[in-house]
Amino acid sequence: MSLPASARIDIERFWATIERSAEIGTGRPGGLSRLALSDSDKEMRDVFVGWCREAGLSVRIDAIGNIFARRPGLDDSLPPVVMGSHLDTQVNGGRFDGIAGVLGGLEVIRALDAAGHRTRRPLELVNWTNEEGSRFSPPMVGSGCFTGVYTLDWARERRDDDGKSMGEELDRIGYTGETQTAPPPLDSYFEFHIEQGPILDREGFQVGVVTGGFASTGMIVEFRGETAHTGPWPMEKRRNALAAGARLLTAVDDLGWEFAGSGGKATAARLVAWPNKAGIISDWAQVTCDVRHADPEAGAVMAERMLRAAHEAGARANCEVAILDSWRWGGKVFAEEMIGLVRETALGRGYSTRDILSQAGHDAYFLARHTPSAMIFAPCKNGITHNNNELCTREDLAPGLDVLLRAVVARADR
Amino acid sequence: MSLPASARIDIERFWATIERSAEIGTGRPGGLSRLALSDSDKEMRDVFVGWCREAGLSVRIDAIGNIFARRPGLDDSLPPVVMGSHLDTQVNGGRFDGIAGVLGGLEVIRALDAAGHRTRRPLELVNWTNEEGSRFSPPMVGSGCFTGVYTLDWARERRDDDGKSMGEELDRIGYTGETQTAPPPLDSYFEFHIEQGPILDREGFQVGVVTGGFASTGMIVEFRGETAHTGPWPMEKRRNALAAGARLLTAVDDLGWEFAGSGGKATAARLVAWPNKAGIISDWAQVTCDVRHADPEAGAVMAERMLRAAHEAGARANCEVAILDSWRWGGKVFAEEMIGLVRETALGRGYSTRDILSQAGHDAYFLARHTPSAMIFAPCKNGITHNNNELCTREDLAPGLDVLLRAVVARADR
Repeated sequence: MSLPASARIDIERFWATIERSAEIGTGRPGGLSRLALSDSDKEMRDVFVGWCREAGLSVRIDAIGNIFARRPGLDDSLPPVVMGSHLDTQVNGGRFDGIAGVLGGLEVIRALDAAGHRTRRPLELVNWTNEEGSRFSPPMVGSGCFTGVYTLDWARERRDDDGKSMGEELDRIGYTGETQTAPPPLDSYFEFHIEQGPILDREGFQVGVVTGGFASTGMIVEFRGETAHTGPWPMEKRRNALAAGARLLTAVDDLGWEFAGSGGKATAARLVAWPNKAGIISDWAQVTCDVRHADPEAGAVMAERMLRAAHEAGARANCEVAILDSWRWGGKVFAEEMIGLVRETALGRGYSTRDILSQAGHDAYFLARHTPSAMIFAPCKNGITHNNNELCTREDLAPGLDVLLRAVVARADR
Repeated sequence: MSLPASARIDIERFWATIERSAEIGTGRPGGLSRLALSDSDKEMRDVFVGWCREAGLSVRIDAIGNIFARRPGLDDSLPPVVMGSHLDTQVNGGRFDGIAGVLGGLEVIRALDAAGHRTRRPLELVNWTNEEGSRFSPPMVGSGCFTGVYTLDWARERRDDDGKSMGEELDRIGYTGETQTAPPPLDSYFEFHIEQGPILDREGFQVGVVTGGFASTGMIVEFRGETAHTGPWPMEKRRNALAAGARLLTAVDDLGWEFAGSGGKATAARLVAWPNKAGIISDWAQVTCDVRHADPEAGAVMAERMLRAAHEAGARANCEVAILDSWRWGGKVFAEEMIGLVRETALGRGYSTRDILSQAGHDAYFLARHTPSAMIFAPCKNGITHNNNELCTREDLAPGLDVLLRAVVARADR
């Protein structure tokens, strides 16, 4: 049975969920500060689970707190078609980043209910835990655990700046669920997301077909030196870990400018030091930084230069250097059949559509290792995101949601 | 009446007070972490006040928590000769920095009691509040208030990284005393201190006669930018306050190396940023840095270059720049008569003695604006300080303490 002609996204119904979400964990005016596993994340999860149950979905929580809401298929033994994204935000986050993907998936299910359409394959809607990595590093921990990239024990031991672990916080907010032994087979994965960049908005496209990601490399680097007095201690004896960290971040920012002409980016993202006080030289610093480029070769050059800069910064400041963690993502991770389905659906619906690379990290990257995956981008005003001024209108989001609905049904009904 | 021949520093009696102090607010092995107005600072203050009362001194606390312990003179109407330093430490501090000056002054008084000598002028012994500036910025707040450099209201509003104010913490630990309207007249001020540099130890001198200080300039700089995503946001739109801060600290460290050949120092001391998280560009950063040079002209050049670097760093990162605070100290602040008295006393006692510039900040700098002042330096092993491995032996400290005793008496009995 094909999708009834009456089936459609109800953008007002969807918008009401966006506005309800925007009340939970408010930050700066208009924005959200809903950090993973915080009280406000729990509140949002509870509201989301309530909405899912009202829609007749069965809800399952896994051991890292990922929420799976399932709508049975006509043949419920088949692997599900999955939609998902995340409900957590940055400390100065917007109200659409991630959220539009989860609540958009909920709207797809409500639209199918309203149209009385049951798909052949079951549907699942997922909220992935700690996508942002703002509270617990690294990002995308929930989807990383689900797909076996991270172990559960390791993930539960990730700690925030106050020393609280993901495991403790999951237990505290009541979102430690069943342990999964291996990722269950999925039919496919769709993630609807705002672009978080200026391209679609500037060029006037309604739908972005994500063909892959910028080649991105990040790392966490630790420098170890020695405390001493900031006055008399001779320069040649100094082992200033903060100076080493500052040198690395400066070099990374320089790299970004060097590659800016070809669209490359490099970010001095985070620096913590100890004691980090006036009057005393710091003996410890930790830096988080990353480089991204559309061209994998240029991305590799930037990554190699960043790594070299870490060692040069440590050597200059006479500090020991340790790469505590590093990660790579991006490239052509998405299945051609899925990209094609999204592109044809968007064009078939008459939307102005362009192929686009994602420049951010997404849960879909990890899902793509496990199942055919695709992302659908919607424009956001001026590309502003990770900022309380992040802004989308109903008109920005409706086309992508419509594509999500129809691509999911096409996949689930085949 | 002249000082009896029997009068002498009892180094074991002094050492016992150093060892008792070293039990209060312990930090890394062998070191102290006794931050101003913390519970351990209160405990040390209580012990010190007890020792002073046992020695028959009358104890007075002023409104910023400076502790004055007074030994009457034969003519108690004369202004007192004052000895002082500080009992607070850095987070990774040693057991001698500051402490040796306060407890050394106590030992001078005990030695006079033991010898039955009462000076013509009264003596006062002071513990200055928050010399280190490790918890509350800036350093030397207690002596700054006493001498009218800072107002009491301003000082009470200084806040630590947890937002607690000096005023609240003084009240909490019970060390808010009487408000002083103007600094009372003093005869003179002596501060005994470890050198906190390698010169005396390396060259084998027993006593350092401090003739002045390195020309030192420090500042606190704030950068304001805008949060954004670390991925898609174009370099040319970025306003990364953390990158601005890192650029300034790198430039300051470079300055230090540039002037290292002539003994100059520059310190990347502190950097805090917000949100300072992976995934989001920071919109706020605050940097503390300083430059120091023996030659005032070179010091002025370094200071001017540091200031220019702040504006260049802000411009490069497209951030607003504000100099929140800046300070200068050093130069020939000490009275020639006092320097001469210390030098002659040391030479007269047969100690190997050299003139030396202080490279650190000291309460004596502020006192010197108000009364003739002098500092006496003792060697410390390899110049290590602001580090738990700071080390002095009895033999390192005894000569300087003997000079302190005799110079104070010479001044107080004239």
